[in-house]
Amino acid sequence: MSPKFFFFSYVEVHWFNKLHLFEYLSNDADVSYALTSERNIHSLLSVCACFIYELFTVCPSRLYRAQGSGKMQSNLSVSDSDGSSFAPLVVLELAEDTEAETIAWLLNRIKDKQQNGGAELLVEQLQVSGQNELKRSPKVSFFVGSTWQRLLNGAEDVGLFKEFHDGTMRGFTYANRESFKDFQGDGDDFLSIAECQYIIKHELETLRAKAEVHVPGYPKVKLYPGKSVIRRLQSKGILVQYYPLHDKEELKRLSFSWYRKINLSFQPLDDIRHYFGEGLALYFGFLEYFTFALVPMALIGIPYYLFAWEDYDKYVLFAVFNLVWSTVFLEVWKRCSAQLAYGWGTLSRKKAFEEPRPGFHGALGTNLVTGREEPVYSNTKRQLRIYLVSVPFVLLCLHLSLYVMMIYFDMENWALSIYDEDPNLWTSVLLFIPSIIYAVVIEIMNLLYRHAAEFLTGWENHRLESSFQNHLVLKVLVFNFVNCFASLFYIAFVMQDMLLLRQSLATLLITSQILNQIMEAFLPYWLQRRRNKKVHKRVRRMMGDKELPLVEQVQLESDMNTYLGTFDDYLEQFLLFGYVSLFSCVYPLAALLVVLNNITEVYSDAFKMCHVFKRPFSEPASDIGVWQLAFETMSAIAVVTNCALIALSPQVKAYFPEMETQLILTVVAVEHCVLAFKFILAFIIPDVPKDIQIKLAKLEFESLEALKKKKMLEAAEIPKTDK
Amino acid sequence: MSPKFFFFSYVEVHWFNKLHLFEYLSNDADVSYALTSERNIHSLLSVCACFIYELFTVCPSRLYRAQGSGKMQSNLSVSDSDGSSFAPLVVLELAEDTEAETIAWLLNRIKDKQQNGGAELLVEQLQVSGQNELKRSPKVSFFVGSTWQRLLNGAEDVGLFKEFHDGTMRGFTYANRESFKDFQGDGDDFLSIAECQYIIKHELETLRAKAEVHVPGYPKVKLYPGKSVIRRLQSKGILVQYYPLHDKEELKRLSFSWYRKINLSFQPLDDIRHYFGEGLALYFGFLEYFTFALVPMALIGIPYYLFAWEDYDKYVLFAVFNLVWSTVFLEVWKRCSAQLAYGWGTLSRKKAFEEPRPGFHGALGTNLVTGREEPVYSNTKRQLRIYLVSVPFVLLCLHLSLYVMMIYFDMENWALSIYDEDPNLWTSVLLFIPSIIYAVVIEIMNLLYRHAAEFLTGWENHRLESSFQNHLVLKVLVFNFVNCFASLFYIAFVMQDMLLLRQSLATLLITSQILNQIMEAFLPYWLQRRRNKKVHKRVRRMMGDKELPLVEQVQLESDMNTYLGTFDDYLEQFLLFGYVSLFSCVYPLAALLVVLNNITEVYSDAFKMCHVFKRPFSEPASDIGVWQLAFETMSAIAVVTNCALIALSPQVKAYFPEMETQLILTVVAVEHCVLAFKFILAFIIPDVPKDIQIKLAKLEFESLEALKKKKMLEAAEIPKTDK
Repeated sequence: MSPKFFFFSYVEVHWFNKLHLFEYLSNDADVSYALTSERNIHSLLSVCACFIYELFTVCPSRLYRAQGSGKMQSNLSVSDSDGSSFAPLVVLELAEDTEAETIAWLLNRIKDKQQNGGAELLVEQLQVSGQNELKRSPKVSFFVGSTWQRLLNGAEDVGLFKEFHDGTMRGFTYANRESFKDFQGDGDDFLSIAECQYIIKHELETLRAKAEVHVPGYPKVKLYPGKSVIRRLQSKGILVQYYPLHDKEELKRLSFSWYRKINLSFQPLDDIRHYFGEGLALYFGFLEYFTFALVPMALIGIPYYLFAWEDYDKYVLFAVFNLVWSTVFLEVWKRCSAQLAYGWGTLSRKKAFEEPRPGFHGALGTNLVTGREEPVYSNTKRQLRIYLVSVPFVLLCLHLSLYVMMIYFDMENWALSIYDEDPNLWTSVLLFIPSIIYAVVIEIMNLLYRHAAEFLTGWENHRLESSFQNHLVLKVLVFNFVNCFASLFYIAFVMQDMLLLRQSLATLLITSQILNQIMEAFLPYWLQRRRNKKVHKRVRRMMGDKELPLVEQVQLESDMNTYLGTFDDYLEQFLLFGYVSLFSCVYPLAALLVVLNNITEVYSDAFKMCHVFKRPFSEPASDIGVWQLAFETMSAIAVVTNCALIALSPQVKAYFPEMETQLILTVVAVEHCVLAFKFILAFIIPDVPKDIQIKLAKLEFESLEALKKKKMLEAAEIPKTDK
Repeated sequence: MSPKFFFFSYVEVHWFNKLHLFEYLSNDADVSYALTSERNIHSLLSVCACFIYELFTVCPSRLYRAQGSGKMQSNLSVSDSDGSSFAPLVVLELAEDTEAETIAWLLNRIKDKQQNGGAELLVEQLQVSGQNELKRSPKVSFFVGSTWQRLLNGAEDVGLFKEFHDGTMRGFTYANRESFKDFQGDGDDFLSIAECQYIIKHELETLRAKAEVHVPGYPKVKLYPGKSVIRRLQSKGILVQYYPLHDKEELKRLSFSWYRKINLSFQPLDDIRHYFGEGLALYFGFLEYFTFALVPMALIGIPYYLFAWEDYDKYVLFAVFNLVWSTVFLEVWKRCSAQLAYGWGTLSRKKAFEEPRPGFHGALGTNLVTGREEPVYSNTKRQLRIYLVSVPFVLLCLHLSLYVMMIYFDMENWALSIYDEDPNLWTSVLLFIPSIIYAVVIEIMNLLYRHAAEFLTGWENHRLESSFQNHLVLKVLVFNFVNCFASLFYIAFVMQDMLLLRQSLATLLITSQILNQIMEAFLPYWLQRRRNKKVHKRVRRMMGDKELPLVEQVQLESDMNTYLGTFDDYLEQFLLFGYVSLFSCVYPLAALLVVLNNITEVYSDAFKMCHVFKRPFSEPASDIGVWQLAFETMSAIAVVTNCALIALSPQVKAYFPEMETQLILTVVAVEHCVLAFKFILAFIIPDVPKDIQIKLAKLEFESLEALKKKKMLEAAEIPKTDK
């Protein structure tokens, strides 16, 4: 029954994450420093130090020099079988024992003309040089590239929006290419590399089987006309992975403007989007927006901390401010996100027709929409699985989580009673035991649950990846919410111990803050100082300014972890938002701590994206999707908890002496009014800023007018016969 | 303090409405029986009787005969100046003192070719014959018609969706006309007359000024390039009105299948839509759906009435059922409405670009969307007017309404105390005085408020008609809600007199029901019986089977009231929904009464549409718009009131003896769970049925595929130069 449990729980959780980070760091070491070839003598910590060294001591002038060094394709290129060279954009990695027949077939299909059902891309096998000591497994890798003409046509296929010469965003068409703002010459600077890679991914994924009944060389891997070849190869393990290549020059430039200098300016969201795509840029945009939005709350929270700890009257004011803030914050984010998405051309972009996800299976039938033959799976069956298995399972897990929490509180009481009976060193150590056990159990439950949720959602057999993701997010979100906040709710509303609640909240946030600072700056910095001279010299000697040869780059990137999307990043922000909003009127300093935490978060996330993971394929996104709903739900729950907390405060209770009923009714009435006000506010504030509404309306109007004009000309040509 | 006030209030309101109905009936009499020419000797009641006579005694065979009599245009036609005859569809009525120059200019613009900026329609002045004794004012009326070719092109302009030969709904294009299901020959049966009239309205309204700086003949009526000519003439009073003509044959057929036989089958929604357009058909669809949806509630309510008046335990069950029902009801309606709208081609139809409403004014500026010169009005100014004037005004009116209610309750108490002191005839009459005064005051307030709301919304100077309507609906809705339900809320939650509440609710609904029955069936039936012989003979002699000549038809329809839209009809249903859902757990019989009321409502509304009003222009609608939101809000409020009523019930209170706090907390918790459940349910139930989703997805997929194919062919033609 003390805040120490939270500390321990947090430490445990945090170290778990940090071990992951070390893993990342060590992976990242491979990318830039693997050439040192003495990899095995590098400890995790020394690897980490290298990065921090670079982070703090790298010479800006050298980076700026890199900025002028031209496009990637001028640095690196491979030649295809015809001898013409092309810039490698995407790497396909096949299993080592893939049949030669299969490889030949696949390459042929990729190279084949579009009229013949091919992807019309350029492809070349990676030539692994014998002397390369980093070669670990004999993977069969291929570079995929494309001509500019093909990429521009592909941009039209995927429905890319680009800035028109009049400043509006329009769907790119090859025919009108000259009218787009940045189109010059052959258009070889028009598309960003991330866009090119996205286009190649799209073209590869829409490469469909023609008359083949199975993959050549694998009679058991069935195909049917219209099935995506890549998806089938992937789901059968023949295609191990495919990923876009990092562009070292651009990455250097980006990382310098992003996180390598300690700056107070905004993040280079456009550059992030340029390199990583809209989905990730929106995450970083949200992170930044959330942090800035918390600043007023943080500033208001400081005087509360300094002067009026116990004055609940003022807390009521703070809570009201907080409620209005959380609504306005989310509504204004919608507008910001629309603004960003418009500028990036994803706001009015139509969603491409979604393919079934690789894991989807079912009896072969006719897709009612496309008319193609493909596996179909009864929606009723899926609904049954969801409502009869998944939902009860989640409820059971929640019950278990609450049960464990109750056991923990019991253990706490038991330890406290033993300590009270005989206070000595051993019993005071015993006080910490329940917290530690609970923290470990929570962590284990989280891990087990995550796996179970993934398995269950897979078993539900969703046809589309988006549907799979939504169901997974929902499952994980509910469980994480309960696991993180259940004990706080219990302390607040069952134990009604406000002092303990405040302490718990404070401990949780402060330890998180301190550990973040230590883990992401001080510890590595200290390690770096310790190993500075030794590593510094060796790195300088091995690296110089020399670029890594392409082959090694591919092999290094192939071993990097795959970035699994923004899920965990958003989840972390979601839980922080919960800490800030749910119990804010008890602990107004929370906002300040979250602001401090998020400032470091930006740097560590940016570092992670640039150096720890494989480059992810750019993912078009026009908003933060299901997370908007999650944050809005949290802010609605916050209204309820804050109103309840205010009702429980002694100062408010003093206004209604001997009239508890009256108090409760008043609070309930106020709560309903606040909720109604929230909905009205959300309704009144337009989701899209006026100027973008006008731009969108203008486009629509113009297309209507153009259509009308065309019609009128056609009508004039038709002889009037039927009067 | 008695239910009688409700009775009197209702009677007053109802008679007010019924006087309106008599007015309608007398107007309607003009349409069909004006040829009797002894109009002045007909009393209101005898006119009414004629209709009821026809309603009950008309020979079905005669009506069926009419069904085979062919299309309107074969019966009626006028010749334009070129001598070619056309079917008159729309009537333009100019002010009697319109300058000849203006008329000539307008006719020329309407007839002019589209290439020259004209509407390319056929138009002819109405020839008023001298001997016509019905001619009351020398209005200048014109028939507008069109060739089929022009109408088909217009159908494309307005974006009409029609059934394709494969059963899907697609945007009609003249080029693909042969591929549409019902297209035969020249296509002169393809469009319904309502659609033709809608197209003509659209073409007239988009007839724009070219170089004219003012209307010829009226130097003060300014024009600027792009201004809608019709709108400007209308706003300056030169164009008095324009309306579509009724089609007597079709109307007869429709009215027979709709309301002239007492049937238990569904309404002919497709025919209604065919004649009146989608907006009205959706209203009648909603009315029918609402009534059917209430049937289970009505059936469950009966045993409550028969056996267990005071058993609140069961009421709790009923209230829970009711809450789930009201959520499911509204969600399922969305699906039904999507189904209807899909079948009528309005679901995926794009909204036409909306013109400024006639009353809109502002300084001449550039429209940012269209780039045209037109009046612009600062949005900030409008917002200031809304938030600084309209919102305070509405709040003041609400306050006034509540204040009047309090005065009424005071007067009730005062009358009761006088009666208690000295109970005699005079003091018992005094008991009724407050109710009567309150009812009259409420009615006066409603009327005054409606006018004030219309004035204020006009003064807010909304650019679009839809925005104007939304603001008006919101204003009227809030005030009506408070006016109708405030006294019930007061009785329920301040006086906490459940018996009185139930009586009030019952009185209100039962009197409404009885009066409805009397007014809409028994009274007219009785009158008809009394005058049966006299009228019967005269009508037979004067009418026979003869059709009214076109000129008289126009003059009669011109004098009919204009149907102002479905606002009042929806408002009535909204208030009935409130009676059913807000206090249902106190009075389970309410649903039954509403069902009975709505059955007669269908008949009276249908009669009103067919005979009382001018034919309205068909209005495309894909849903019931803002009313969906209004009903959903009401059902959310119903959760709160029902939970509160349950908490107040003695049986529930008995479960928590001496623990009022506990009781309230439990109820609040349950209420929150129910609200959360409502939201989740609304989220889970898809708004569009699966089969329609598939059809829509199929269309989109096909258009994507077609585009891709086209692109591929184009790409194949372009020589590959930039490898």
